[in-house]
This record gives sequence, structure tokens and C-alpha cells, in this order.
Amino acid sequence: MQVNGTAYRSIWLEDEGRSTRIIDQTLLPFQFQTTRLTRAGDAVAAIADMVVRGAPLIGATAACGMLLAVNEDTADQHLRSAANALLAARPTAVNLRWALERMLPALLNVPAAERFDTARRLAQQICDEDVANNSAIGDHGLQILQQMAARFEPDRPLNVLTHCNAGWLATVDWGTALAPIFKAHNAGTAIHVWVDETRPRNQGASLTAWELNAHGVPHTVIADNAGGHLMQHGQVDLCIVGSDRTTRCGDVCNKIGTYLKALAADDNEVPFYAALPSSTIDWTLCEGVSEIPIEERAAEEVTHITGSDADNRSVRVRVTPQGSPAANPAFDVTPRRFISGIITERGVCAASEAALLALYPEQVEH
Amino acid sequence: MQVNGTAYRSIWLEDEGRSTRIIDQTLLPFQFQTTRLTRAGDAVAAIADMVVRGAPLIGATAACGMLLAVNEDTADQHLRSAANALLAARPTAVNLRWALERMLPALLNVPAAERFDTARRLAQQICDEDVANNSAIGDHGLQILQQMAARFEPDRPLNVLTHCNAGWLATVDWGTALAPIFKAHNAGTAIHVWVDETRPRNQGASLTAWELNAHGVPHTVIADNAGGHLMQHGQVDLCIVGSDRTTRCGDVCNKIGTYLKALAADDNEVPFYAALPSSTIDWTLCEGVSEIPIEERAAEEVTHITGSDADNRSVRVRVTPQGSPAANPAFDVTPRRFISGIITERGVCAASEAALLALYPEQVEH
Repeated sequence: MQVNGTAYRSIWLEDEGRSTRIIDQTLLPFQFQTTRLTRAGDAVAAIADMVVRGAPLIGATAACGMLLAVNEDTADQHLRSAANALLAARPTAVNLRWALERMLPALLNVPAAERFDTARRLAQQICDEDVANNSAIGDHGLQILQQMAARFEPDRPLNVLTHCNAGWLATVDWGTALAPIFKAHNAGTAIHVWVDETRPRNQGASLTAWELNAHGVPHTVIADNAGGHLMQHGQVDLCIVGSDRTTRCGDVCNKIGTYLKALAADDNEVPFYAALPSSTIDWTLCEGVSEIPIEERAAEEVTHITGSDADNRSVRVRVTPQGSPAANPAFDVTPRRFISGIITERGVCAASEAALLALYPEQVEH
Repeated sequence: MQVNGTAYRSIWLEDEGRSTRIIDQTLLPFQFQTTRLTRAGDAVAAIADMVVRGAPLIGATAACGMLLAVNEDTADQHLRSAANALLAARPTAVNLRWALERMLPALLNVPAAERFDTARRLAQQICDEDVANNSAIGDHGLQILQQMAARFEPDRPLNVLTHCNAGWLATVDWGTALAPIFKAHNAGTAIHVWVDETRPRNQGASLTAWELNAHGVPHTVIADNAGGHLMQHGQVDLCIVGSDRTTRCGDVCNKIGTYLKALAADDNEVPFYAALPSSTIDWTLCEGVSEIPIEERAAEEVTHITGSDADNRSVRVRVTPQGSPAANPAFDVTPRRFISGIITERGVCAASEAALLALYPEQVEH
């Protein structure tokens, strides 16, 4: 996507594959700065320190990390050790394991002299496939947005509400929930995005708002509390969110607070979509509320906030009294009855087991 | 209520009425400091600068401000001018006008020599009546809490969720939504409060958490996004919120985000109560969503947050990108169909016109 007029991905190969460049996401939204990775250890650190984040981007960074490892030393032992270090950088990330399982055996399977070219080809492929999947999600979602926009006067912007960051910074490009929004904007459809700030980590206020601002998409940041009121007053035409994990029955686990917006959308007859690559579908689960364990994160994410002070320095401040504990469940589950449709790379379907299996018939055996 | 073992009101007369003491709420939750008002102008500044806030407390402060005015000069002209200055300090506060309309004519009606004693008696009465009303709300709400607590093992705390600050700091003592909670805690009922931080102004994280902490009531601060998830998992037994304005039909206008919690309570069969003095009921309105205008406040309340840095200095930081606009509707309306009951100083009733008029038959003529 565009950053003030220049097209970027969130990660790309440089120097014929001998280095990788990423955007330092820890500095956003206050500074846009890219960082060069030249050793596998740099990729490990970038993942561990959340310089890159978002499951698809973590997978792509791991793939590039293996390319950097090959560039250092093509020996089996070195590649195995690099893969282990990358895997340990964020042990729960599914895409990290998936990318490494695609890279390591393929590299060990070819002679040392071919390993660099193989690694470069595979790393590029992993990045490109992610872009293609998200672009497909964007194309399918675009149809929904354009059908809805067609009901209004051409200069009346379509008002879309999103929660958290399911944008291009979490992927290699396009994003998931934001992909249809970028596509609509690029196609000249008037669109305006309500951006939930998404406490406690503020990914909406910091990343989604930054992406939309940099690409030139009209948007307004709101407190997470505001969406229901806006929907009651007809100011939201449609909601689109991402998903961290989706059950085969269509329940959507996403950033904490998604469920509250889905309830408000339901109460006000506002369509509510989840946009997700099929890699987030867990075909072994059905009832999300009871079956998906929810990560409880550090209380400090609630009790403290980092922002930029009057001198543009990053400052961390406490916002709760000393002595008041805090709880921080990171995700919630939106039951499928509140979801109008699921937008995948293969198309849009109802949030139901039958509809998901019709799109992914190869999963019927599960 | 208690502040670390000492009983406080949020405002009280000192020096036989020749000065008034208040708690400087702009320093909370990081510093507890009281301030002495000796002139009517001090009361004007305290209201205008939000050193005191909350409709009932603003009314009480205006009454005390008139007492300070009489102490300065008993002349009609001085009292009229003090009343005008107090009224202008926060022109939209209903209780401010109400308190002044009670004080000024009564003072002008008695000889100059009696004005100080009259002002002192009336100011004290206005404070005491507020405490009595809130205490009655607390007693009625206490019955609901204790009936519910009786269903559980005695050591299993009752989990109550509240939004914003409807505590004693917003009134003279007890508060509205928090009054039943303080009463239950004082009576030895095991109770635990989920405190919504209440973005964008964070009144939950800063004031409600501070009140509960100072009084010793177990509580946990959560992001506004978390309540729905907690309700899905049986971790909330009951919600109690305050109200800024209530229609005669039972719709409740309260801090932005209240509606989202009411939706989640409804979806999970969690009782949802509003606790309010009848002074907040607007008998001229019925349909809150369409009839109550919602104040749009400054975008800076969303884009910036004030907290305490590592050196305990108060620092204001920006949390959104430069160039991203923000919107800030301050209240929302929870339709009566989501409200289990309204707790007033006269008792608990259904959120309906018939039930409210049965409690307040003198309003039938409207």
C-alpha cells in the first residue's frame, strides 16, 4: 500500500536476497522507519521484539530469516539451528511454524550450492502468495462494498467500521479486513472508515489509523465505546473485522471487543463481516465460546499506555491508581449468529459449517 | 466513604461555614489532596476547572459558593452577581441552576443579618439531602445484590460490572451506581467489581478504581472491550450503571459505551440495572435514542491521554497519528428493553413509563 505516495510492502528482499528490509512497527504511528536485516539473528530479534507482528508477516519474516541463514552458512546444522531460533522467537505463532516447515526441508533436500537460490525463490513465493491471498480477499470484499455503495448517492461515502488492525502491516500487503477498503478507495468508491482505537494495545489508533492516513483513505478514530451509538444513528453502513481463529462452524475469535460491536450491528441491522484467509480456520473446532482458549495478557497493557509527548518523545504513562489490579483478556469470540458473512480468498460465504465446507471441500474429511 | 481508613465526603463546610473544603479531583487517581475554598470566586473556579465534577457535587458546590458569597458581602447585588458567575461556570449543568434557584431567592428574602445563617443552613441541607438520596438508592440496590449473593456460596464474591464513575466523588457521598456496592461491602457481602476504564476520559480507571481502592472494595480494571467476553464466561453476575438523563419511558442516557454493555448483558442473561436519583428523569421525553441530543466533545480527549510517568509526573501523550481525525460522542442511550430495573431513591422499578409513574405519581400530569 501507499505511504505518502510511495508503494510499500511490509517486508521485501534487497540486495538480490542478501538482505531483507522491514518497517519498524514499534515506532508507528509516530515514526516511519525501515530496518535492514542481514543475519538470521536479526530476523529472530525482529519477530521477538515485535518490530514485525501479525501472523502472516511473522511467517514471511521467518522465511526471509531462513534465506539470511543460508547466506551466512549453507551447512545443515546452521540451517537447523536458525530454524529453531526463529521458531522460538514467538512460539505460539502458527504461521511461523508453517513457514519454517516449508523452508527447512526444502533447503536440506537440495545440494548446498543450490540452497541460496532455493531459499530466495521460496521466501519470495511465501511473500507473494500472502499478497495474492489478501488481494483475493480484497476483491471479494470489494463486491460487497460496491453493491452497498450503489444504494447511495455517489458522493455519499460508505461508512465502514473496523476493529483492531487487520491491515497490510499485519500481512505482506493489502491486509485482510482492510483489503476490501483499500480496493474500494483505489477504485474511486467514496469510503470513510470508523477506526476503533482498540484498547488496551491501541492497534486501531496506532496502526489502522496510520495505514489509512498514509494511503489517503478518509477515516476517523473513535473510542471503542462509540460504535454502538454510531450504529443507532445510522452512521455505520457495514462492519468488517479480521480473525485470529475461526471455527469450522463460523464462530470468529478476534481482538477483544469485536463481540460487542457485532451485538450492536445485530441490534441495528448493520451487516457484520469477518475477512480472513482460510489459514485461520481451525477445522477441528465448532463452538468458539466454549472451545477456544483466550489468552490472558499482562495487566500492564491496561494500566499503562505509551504515547508521544509534546516533544515527540515516546513516553509510557500509568492511567490507573497504584493498587488497582487489572485483567486483560486479549480476544473474544463472536458467535456465528451475529456474522453476516465470511470473506475468504476463495469468496464470501455464510458463517456456517455447510457454507465453509462448500468453499473448502477438501476439508470435509475432518 | 473511606479514604484509607478515614471517612470523607466530597465537599464539606469548615470554620463554621466561613470556608468549604473539597477534594481536588483533577489530581486523582495519583494524588489525594483537599483544597479550601474561601471566596465565591474559588467555587466558580473549582466548578469551571473541573476540580469538582458530577452533577450533584456541582450543585452542592454552587450552594456552598453562595454561602462563601454571603460571607464576603451580604448585599443583594453581590449575591446576584455571585449566582450569575456560578451559573456561568458550567452553563449546561442542571443541578447548578437548581441549587442556585434554591439559594438566591431564599437569601434575598431574609434581612442581611440573617443571610449567613440561612445560607449555611441551606447549603448544609442541599449536601445532606444528596447524601440521603444516594443512601436510599444504596439501600434499595443492596437488596438486589444481597438476594443475588444469597444464591452463591458465602465466600464466592458477587461480580458486578460498572461503567464510568457513578461513585461518591460525583455526588456528596455514596454515589449512585456505586452506593449499593459500598453498602454491600460495608455489610460484609463478598463483592468484586469489574471497572470499565471508560475511554476516552477514563473515569472508570481513574475515579471508580480509586474510590474502590481507597474504600477497600475488591475490584479489577478492564478495557471497555472486555465486558462482553467476561459475560460470555459467567464472570459477571450483574451490571449497575448510573444515568445522566433518563426518559419517563425508562430509556437511559449514560456515558458512551453503556449501550454496548447492556447488549452483552442481554445476550448473556446478566441483569442490567441503572441507579439514579429522580432528578435525572426528564419527564418530557420518551424515546431516548431519537429524542436525547448527544454532546460531541473535543477530539483531543480521544487523541491524547494524561497519565503518570515513571517519576510520578502528570504527562499528556498523543496516541493517534498526526493527521488522523477523531470523533468523540460523550454519551449513548440504552433502550429500556435492555434494562432489568431502575434503582431510585424511592425504590426499584421496571424501566417503563407505568412503573416510573407509579413510583412518582406526582409526575402523572406531564
